Amino acid sequence: MLPHVIIVGGGFGGLKAARELRHAPVRITLIDKSNHHLFQPLLYQVATAGLSPADIAAPIRGVLGSQANTEVLLGEVTGVDLNAREVVVKDRRIRYDYLVIATGSTHSYFGHEEWEKYAPGIKSIHDATMMRQKILLAFEAAESEDDPEKKRKLLTFAIVGGGPTGVELSGALSELAHHALAADFRHIDPKLARIVLVEAGPRVLATFHADIALKTQRKLEKMGVEVRTNSRVECVDAQGVVVGGERIEAATVLWAAGVVASPAAKWLGIPSDRVGRVKVAPDLSIPGHSNVFVIGDTSTLEQNGQPLPGVAPVALQEAQFVARRIGRLVRGEKAEGVFHYHDKGNLATVGRAFAVVDFGRRRGTGFFAWILWLVVHIFYLIGFRNRLAVIFEWAWAYLTFQRGARLITDASPANSE
Amino acid sequence: MLPHVIIVGGGFGGLKAARELRHAPVRITLIDKSNHHLFQPLLYQVATAGLSPADIAAPIRGVLGSQANTEVLLGEVTGVDLNAREVVVKDRRIRYDYLVIATGSTHSYFGHEEWEKYAPGIKSIHDATMMRQKILLAFEAAESEDDPEKKRKLLTFAIVGGGPTGVELSGALSELAHHALAADFRHIDPKLARIVLVEAGPRVLATFHADIALKTQRKLEKMGVEVRTNSRVECVDAQGVVVGGERIEAATVLWAAGVVASPAAKWLGIPSDRVGRVKVAPDLSIPGHSNVFVIGDTSTLEQNGQPLPGVAPVALQEAQFVARRIGRLVRGEKAEGVFHYHDKGNLATVGRAFAVVDFGRRRGTGFFAWILWLVVHIFYLIGFRNRLAVIFEWAWAYLTFQRGARLITDASPANSE
Repeated sequence: MLPHVIIVGGGFGGLKAARELRHAPVRITLIDKSNHHLFQPLLYQVATAGLSPADIAAPIRGVLGSQANTEVLLGEVTGVDLNAREVVVKDRRIRYDYLVIATGSTHSYFGHEEWEKYAPGIKSIHDATMMRQKILLAFEAAESEDDPEKKRKLLTFAIVGGGPTGVELSGALSELAHHALAADFRHIDPKLARIVLVEAGPRVLATFHADIALKTQRKLEKMGVEVRTNSRVECVDAQGVVVGGERIEAATVLWAAGVVASPAAKWLGIPSDRVGRVKVAPDLSIPGHSNVFVIGDTSTLEQNGQPLPGVAPVALQEAQFVARRIGRLVRGEKAEGVFHYHDKGNLATVGRAFAVVDFGRRRGTGFFAWILWLVVHIFYLIGFRNRLAVIFEWAWAYLTFQRGARLITDASPANSE
Repeated sequence: MLPHVIIVGGGFGGLKAARELRHAPVRITLIDKSNHHLFQPLLYQVATAGLSPADIAAPIRGVLGSQANTEVLLGEVTGVDLNAREVVVKDRRIRYDYLVIATGSTHSYFGHEEWEKYAPGIKSIHDATMMRQKILLAFEAAESEDDPEKKRKLLTFAIVGGGPTGVELSGALSELAHHALAADFRHIDPKLARIVLVEAGPRVLATFHADIALKTQRKLEKMGVEVRTNSRVECVDAQGVVVGGERIEAATVLWAAGVVASPAAKWLGIPSDRVGRVKVAPDLSIPGHSNVFVIGDTSTLEQNGQPLPGVAPVALQEAQFVARRIGRLVRGEKAEGVFHYHDKGNLATVGRAFAVVDFGRRRGTGFFAWILWLVVHIFYLIGFRNRLAVIFEWAWAYLTFQRGARLITDASPANSE
């Protein structure tokens, strides 16, 4: 009987681990609560009506279907029994010999969970289509609104969080308003939409080099985005946000700040950091259980005195390390060594044909950075079909300014709030 | 002040009428309760995970944005005041000089509205993605199910209604099960999925010629679909359907039989037929109001002793007629003549590379009919981008058997029924 590896989570980390183990003498079960792998770096594009959900997601079964040693289970894990070596999925308990937890993170509201209903974040396709709907309905409502105060509020959008997601959202929203929707309305001028990006720290893109951050802010401002740094959000409600004592009236507030890990640490009953991430050993296993690994956003590991960031490349490299480790363990080989992350750099796109790249000594902004950003993101997309589809969608949008996926598909949008 | 034309509905009829009036000396307001025009003939493809919503829908504002005399309003019409010449949209009343009602139809359950929750139909993108989810979750549930009886029920699909929609749904579902999903599961063989098409009348495709209908049935049977004709559904519930006294246990029942018109007749307070369609005059206006027109599925007109069918080409030709009529009326020209529908024929696709076409004397089935079906459907799709996207998606699916849009995007699929 082959050893059973359970992988929880079909995101970057989980899927990579499964693929890297395809030739190992193991039986693999990958469990995810949704049926698709999501390319999260492009989720903001779905949220701003630039791409369709199917362009950035691949059914996990489609990816792993031909991998003979692997099966996929659609289910939500609710706990782990370390002693019995079992994973609990609803009313089933499944035994493992090796366990890889890669369940990611979700957005957090710094203790103000009540802000969530006013300021949605994007972590899933459902989130992204809901955000898209919220944005498009704001323009629709403004079109029919006679009161100029209310109209102004409907055309004001606040984005909280100046990291890559917030920067990308505000840039894309600005393009949507100033280009794609420009000719669509008769009683409003979408180009007059007010987009405010609010960042608590001293600059946007805190993980990038300072001059990159400065160029990004300048570019956003040129695109019509108001960038407020050193501005902590004190309140989020139906009227908008309060920042530094000032009320910004906005019908739409989007959340791109603050993450919290999945409940993995609770399942395992072991120490976690301030945002719930599991503190793993240098070989990514948990203390006392060398057959249980936690990778990606839901774990934390220090390197050079700093915790590794919750970004895709970290999850991918950790997955590869763990897969190799398990491969050696099942073959009875020596399994030594610790994980070391090779930071290849940071990328973010700011708008049409403008991105920023930071590879440490080599940095750049502008059109060529954007080409690089395109190439990297298309390369890492799972599925050849998806790559073609995204190239097609982007080429279309770039050439025509049309944002192709501007659908409101909720059951009764005309009656939505 | 230019005369105001209000068009209610942004489907085939409404959108065509608006476009045909783009050079007329009128002001147009098109009102729809959703923000997009939907290419309904391909909705079954979204429901069976072959196409994405954005491939078959176009934002109405995107289509009409450049039409200077036209504005779009997202709203739900709740009534018409014929005397005051006003359309009621929520709490607003909008005055018209000419009114075109093109609000379409929805599915009906022959008086058994309680069947709807067990047997959804497809009339909107929301319907289609919900149906897609239902279908995919049935396979997921069967994969985790140990009880062979329950497994068999989960892998049984019943489709009610043997018209083009039912035929197309069963053919596409068969392809999904027998090809696209074939390698995805480990505890079920999707090829063993049982698909039953139930038709109350003596044959499928009642509006097509008899030998076309026969060839269609044979093709479906070759594809693994059980076709039951002369079989009226007596009951639909959580266990499946009862047909001719026989219980067919099916976890998934899809409805493709029976339509009912939108409430237009009630708004206008005028006579309608058995399924609520407005009985229009030969010039498509309503009795006593030559400035109010009703077109498409929500109207009924006899030609050669038969009511015109509720298909897209009828709506398109009626829209053109009405637009020209209004164009003449506003210019003070003579406006005579009655509407005559030129029936160019019927098309339906049965499966991969097999369609049926019926142009009266010229009929055909098979691969070339399929090419024709492809060409016609792509031609009538609104939007060049959509046409390219659909060509791409279909070429991909045809070449690889992969059905690209297999996503379950509901908030918590692992916890769905």
